[in-house]
Amino acid sequence: MTLTKSKIAAMNFNIHKPDVSFSIELKRKIDMKTKPIGALGKLEALALQIGLVQQTLNPALTKPCILVLAGDHGIANEGVSAYPQEVTHQMVFNFLSGGAAINVFCEQNNICLKIVDTGVNFDFYQSGEDLINAKVGYGTNSFLKEAAMSQEQCFEALANGASLIDQLRMSKPGEATCNCVGFGEMGIGNTSSAAVLMSLLCNFSIEDCVGRGTGLNNEQVENKIKILKRAIEKSNSSLFDIYDTLAYFGGFEIATMVGAMLRAAELKMILIVDGFISTAAFLVAHQISPNIIHYAIFSHQSDERGHALLLRSMGAEPLLNLNMRLGEGTGCAIAYPIIAAAVNFLNNMSSFRSAGVTLKE
Amino acid sequence: MTLTKSKIAAMNFNIHKPDVSFSIELKRKIDMKTKPIGALGKLEALALQIGLVQQTLNPALTKPCILVLAGDHGIANEGVSAYPQEVTHQMVFNFLSGGAAINVFCEQNNICLKIVDTGVNFDFYQSGEDLINAKVGYGTNSFLKEAAMSQEQCFEALANGASLIDQLRMSKPGEATCNCVGFGEMGIGNTSSAAVLMSLLCNFSIEDCVGRGTGLNNEQVENKIKILKRAIEKSNSSLFDIYDTLAYFGGFEIATMVGAMLRAAELKMILIVDGFISTAAFLVAHQISPNIIHYAIFSHQSDERGHALLLRSMGAEPLLNLNMRLGEGTGCAIAYPIIAAAVNFLNNMSSFRSAGVTLKE
Repeated sequence: MTLTKSKIAAMNFNIHKPDVSFSIELKRKIDMKTKPIGALGKLEALALQIGLVQQTLNPALTKPCILVLAGDHGIANEGVSAYPQEVTHQMVFNFLSGGAAINVFCEQNNICLKIVDTGVNFDFYQSGEDLINAKVGYGTNSFLKEAAMSQEQCFEALANGASLIDQLRMSKPGEATCNCVGFGEMGIGNTSSAAVLMSLLCNFSIEDCVGRGTGLNNEQVENKIKILKRAIEKSNSSLFDIYDTLAYFGGFEIATMVGAMLRAAELKMILIVDGFISTAAFLVAHQISPNIIHYAIFSHQSDERGHALLLRSMGAEPLLNLNMRLGEGTGCAIAYPIIAAAVNFLNNMSSFRSAGVTLKE
Repeated sequence: MTLTKSKIAAMNFNIHKPDVSFSIELKRKIDMKTKPIGALGKLEALALQIGLVQQTLNPALTKPCILVLAGDHGIANEGVSAYPQEVTHQMVFNFLSGGAAINVFCEQNNICLKIVDTGVNFDFYQSGEDLINAKVGYGTNSFLKEAAMSQEQCFEALANGASLIDQLRMSKPGEATCNCVGFGEMGIGNTSSAAVLMSLLCNFSIEDCVGRGTGLNNEQVENKIKILKRAIEKSNSSLFDIYDTLAYFGGFEIATMVGAMLRAAELKMILIVDGFISTAAFLVAHQISPNIIHYAIFSHQSDERGHALLLRSMGAEPLLNLNMRLGEGTGCAIAYPIIAAAVNFLNNMSSFRSAGVTLKE
């Protein structure tokens, strides 16, 4: 084991399965609400999950936040994307000035939004609260030629992710602490990275994992598949463990997200997973620590080919299917009111007894 | 034609198809937002629909409101429901005291909630803003024995529905007017009413239309099917026109809802349709005036058997599928933030030009 790998192993996220014995009491509370048993469908499953994570009959979502992790990809310059690499940093400016979809949806639903530079190929001269600096490099290498990042960079990104969550958890005295975090991303080329991770970690053919990304036509998708196949063949990935795979094919935003997800679950936060790339990061975290699944809510099924299969491979059921495929955490932001509704009915609906409603005959 | 029927015909809702030529400009605005073309999926379709209804590039949803129409059903006493009839009025009290699911979700999403007595078998001694009196009778007759309501009652309910919308539209000077209304209901026995309407108006077998309602077991569902089959045979429904069908098998809340939906579409409001019963009322309105479809948003697909097929029969695509089956307008309330998100992205996202983002290569 290399020095870096032992450092990674030493990060040692301790993610525990919530105590399920508490589900009996939770289920009883849900069933006594003034509605037929099960009539709130997936909202009931969410209420149960969140109650179990927080081990309380009165769960709360406090200071919900979405992290948008931005990073550039060397592979973007190999003809796999419909947009040029510069769009990543342009979109970061768009996030900072409040004009992107994720800004609009977070504003609407009172979600705190944090934009993080994990490795964009641009020097930002802005700083302060709105852009968090967690830069590992100026874009990854092209994994068609070499590993996207070194093991050291991969470790740095994982550690940065954990530290982002620790920062998020800090609060002023008397203020609530964030206990619910959504994971979004921006990075031209990152569907290629996610597709290869999915293919290698789940043993699916690359064809099943590759989609149109930001809008490739059929011919361009064929070309993307060819390039990714060649990259996999060249990489000798059959010798890789999970950290090798992440370093070779990952992006800085993906590796940072893996660290953030693992740390958030360790701290018993509710994780909201967005679309294809966010779920690919979750897949890596899930293979590192399978218990993370108990903390995760899958916000939506993206229209990006591969996402449905990726979700299914982990037994994950997405809340929404609105044919969205934008990333940025937009699925998390759109699904958030539904998650809040689950908590609210559990806390605020009356029971048959308190409302004086006759039980089923 | 009877006197009553000519009165109904004279109500004459004028529902126009929105001018679709405006969709070119709307589509251009949507496509210039900083996202790949189509990447917001169904949100884009919603933005287009609402923009077309309002014939503006900057649509707005003002003072959204959900009507919960409550009514009792004679058929409820024939063994078709898991709950006794008294639960209808008990649930009305639950709505008025703020303890039901619909109260919680409307409160969360800033939706105005109006509870309407269209024909509950109970004398309410409360009145005022929170309970609207539009009572046609003390529950319908059992349609296993005779028509659920007279033609006069059906006309009264339709007119009440139209008048409810007119009341909703009234606003104080300088205040915004409600332009978006969701339709919920409460009425023990009303899945039976809705199932028969669906079967007769769409020519589906009754088996395809009947479900568990508030929670029947398999044997009870079989019995419900038998009872409804007998009722249809006895009614000589082959001679019915749509108003006969509505009067014979409808409920007061369903007929009131039909009138409300028709009037709302005539006034170019956005209609949010809830689950199985609300969609059955929409089906009646749709057969009376097919153009109503352009004003309707189908909030969710309920778990009640029949709803998926009923939606499909009108080419309606529901936004959500959360396995809910509660009624009360809960689907409308849960879907509302998604509808608001569609309007918000159209109004508030920056364009490629304004954000300085490079267009697709």
